[in-house]
Amino acid sequence: MSRTWIVNAALPVHYQVRVVDGVFNPTNRALLEAGATQRTGTIRRLVVLDAEVERLYGVQLRHYLQHHGVKYQIISLPISETEKTMDSVFAVVKGINEFGISRRHEPIIAIGGGVLMDIVGLAASLYRRSTPYVRVPTTLIGLVDAGVGVKTGVNHSAHKNRLGTYFPARDTLLDRGFLKTVDTRHIVNGLAEILKIALIKDRTLFELLERHGTTLITERLQGRTPESNRAATQVIERAITGMLEELEMNLWEHKLERVVDYGHSFSPTIEMLALPELLHGEAVNIDMALTTLISAQRGMITPEERDRIFTLMRKLELPVYHRTCEPAVLVDALADTVRHRDGLQRLPLAIGIGSACFVNDVTPDEMTAAATALREMDASSGSAPMWEAAHA
Amino acid sequence: MSRTWIVNAALPVHYQVRVVDGVFNPTNRALLEAGATQRTGTIRRLVVLDAEVERLYGVQLRHYLQHHGVKYQIISLPISETEKTMDSVFAVVKGINEFGISRRHEPIIAIGGGVLMDIVGLAASLYRRSTPYVRVPTTLIGLVDAGVGVKTGVNHSAHKNRLGTYFPARDTLLDRGFLKTVDTRHIVNGLAEILKIALIKDRTLFELLERHGTTLITERLQGRTPESNRAATQVIERAITGMLEELEMNLWEHKLERVVDYGHSFSPTIEMLALPELLHGEAVNIDMALTTLISAQRGMITPEERDRIFTLMRKLELPVYHRTCEPAVLVDALADTVRHRDGLQRLPLAIGIGSACFVNDVTPDEMTAAATALREMDASSGSAPMWEAAHA
Repeated sequence: MSRTWIVNAALPVHYQVRVVDGVFNPTNRALLEAGATQRTGTIRRLVVLDAEVERLYGVQLRHYLQHHGVKYQIISLPISETEKTMDSVFAVVKGINEFGISRRHEPIIAIGGGVLMDIVGLAASLYRRSTPYVRVPTTLIGLVDAGVGVKTGVNHSAHKNRLGTYFPARDTLLDRGFLKTVDTRHIVNGLAEILKIALIKDRTLFELLERHGTTLITERLQGRTPESNRAATQVIERAITGMLEELEMNLWEHKLERVVDYGHSFSPTIEMLALPELLHGEAVNIDMALTTLISAQRGMITPEERDRIFTLMRKLELPVYHRTCEPAVLVDALADTVRHRDGLQRLPLAIGIGSACFVNDVTPDEMTAAATALREMDASSGSAPMWEAAHA
Repeated sequence: MSRTWIVNAALPVHYQVRVVDGVFNPTNRALLEAGATQRTGTIRRLVVLDAEVERLYGVQLRHYLQHHGVKYQIISLPISETEKTMDSVFAVVKGINEFGISRRHEPIIAIGGGVLMDIVGLAASLYRRSTPYVRVPTTLIGLVDAGVGVKTGVNHSAHKNRLGTYFPARDTLLDRGFLKTVDTRHIVNGLAEILKIALIKDRTLFELLERHGTTLITERLQGRTPESNRAATQVIERAITGMLEELEMNLWEHKLERVVDYGHSFSPTIEMLALPELLHGEAVNIDMALTTLISAQRGMITPEERDRIFTLMRKLELPVYHRTCEPAVLVDALADTVRHRDGLQRLPLAIGIGSACFVNDVTPDEMTAAATALREMDASSGSAPMWEAAHA
């Protein structure tokens, strides 16, 4: 015997992300039809909701589903980063088992923030090895980041997103009306991911944030004036477009140099260590603050650009330091990231504002110098850690 | 706002399955190089073993790894269908975390039967959203079925393979020398999946099983004579080739009419209900016995062909009935399979020997008649259930 069988195939992936206003408005059929390849007969939908979203929108959602004669089951989950676990995935699986959905034409609907979508996406991905799902993000980070890509995941044994899959929602409906009921801290959390896109590839977006950041926060991106409405639209669209430009060519991360990993080199460890103190975007911003200083130390950005970046971070009320940023922690964090990036740092660093490159030679000394500078900056800004001050 | 972003991409999938003799022979570099895109430096490997395989081959494996200077960690898991759970996946994940592998060039090696490979495959698939792995099946069902496709999975809340992914091993090494130490019942277990391929698409394979089945079992496919060696080679190769012909065009099961689902319509429920009494192949054979009778009732196979099939099943020492085959159970089983096949039965039924079609209109009466006939056939074959008699 000396046979070899070679298997060659390709999995085509198509999905869409689209702006829809008034997703629960009964005259709007988008949610009803999203992701469906419906045959005739009763429409059945399992809807998985963040408990907070249920409290705020449960009545509207039920009214919408009843108006369209949908046979539905709603599962409501208490969601936070500490609940981003396989147990939450199992709770969704239990709901699917009990409701009993057909394998291909009854998409699960996930309505909530990034954490909820990541959990439901993983459950859908695993259930019978893949069941279609639809996303309706209700937070800013969901709208511009978690709702745009194909990554699902949960934290496991103190590691961020240690278990997950690449599994796109068939359809994602972006309704920024939800942001009306999002608190300031979670608006800011989403702005961190938008700032990331700005820093690595979109100087215009950076300038939009400088010009309109405060208003975006105050108005929760609802656009109360024609100018602020245009700004909110532009900021969201540029962030999504920038993100998808990077993702589409590299959906399964075969290339491990990813500029969208900016802010995600040290933050997975910081976020997990600080749990539940830091939101994802806050940890990402601390990472970006750290790497901004490393870029500045290397002369890749000027002192003026560095200050401009920190000024914007403050304006956006984003924390730049957390007490977990000890040199030893940062060294460990980078070591795990090196394993994640298959043996090399592949660390995205900003070059000026709106551009980035990758380096493989950041030293412990550089990290220590940057962390020390951030701690001092933080201490001089008042007795409370900045993130507490920002959201007091 | 009324933007829509469309994402189009394709995931290329390439993998190989190859016959390798003497996989632990130090002069054979196949296991060392399988699935690797090694850079220079120390070779590191995490190996996940069935505890029984460790007992039998642990010394050889360690000798092999040490001979090649591999830095390794071995995880040994007690494996059976009842251990095919997410907890076993978590045990593998814990081992990966502790050993700390790089994301792309240190493939996990899974050595064991179908259940072990399905568990390790799921762990590899989920770990950092995909980590390469290599399979070395040590059972017949592993060689011809579980080691050939791309499906990973575990049982969950009493449902067979309810959670899983499509995730190919980069490389699978088939060494039928392992079958020397497999007990008769597990050889027979694998023959059930080979019989499946024979019944639905390969009459020659059916005739090979008729002619050589007894010898294959006695010799554990080791080919003690030139003739039985040729038979063992042909049977394994035809089974794998038949399986891959069906899989390659439909790797992600976008088409839900799958002839390789033959024997897998009622058996998932039967197997789970009977746990741990029936092995997978045994449950599959009971399903095939049932559907053989349904085909016969419909005149799709002649009484002579029916008897010939049952004669071969007996010759291969496969059970054709289990007390869980109650009409109500079969109706529920088919209902779950209908959900799995997106709303239609899409039930493969044999037409004669070596051919199949799909039907959507099997009635409870047909199932009841078939189950009753099997029960009577079983009762008349002695007081003990056939599967016990066969493996006493």
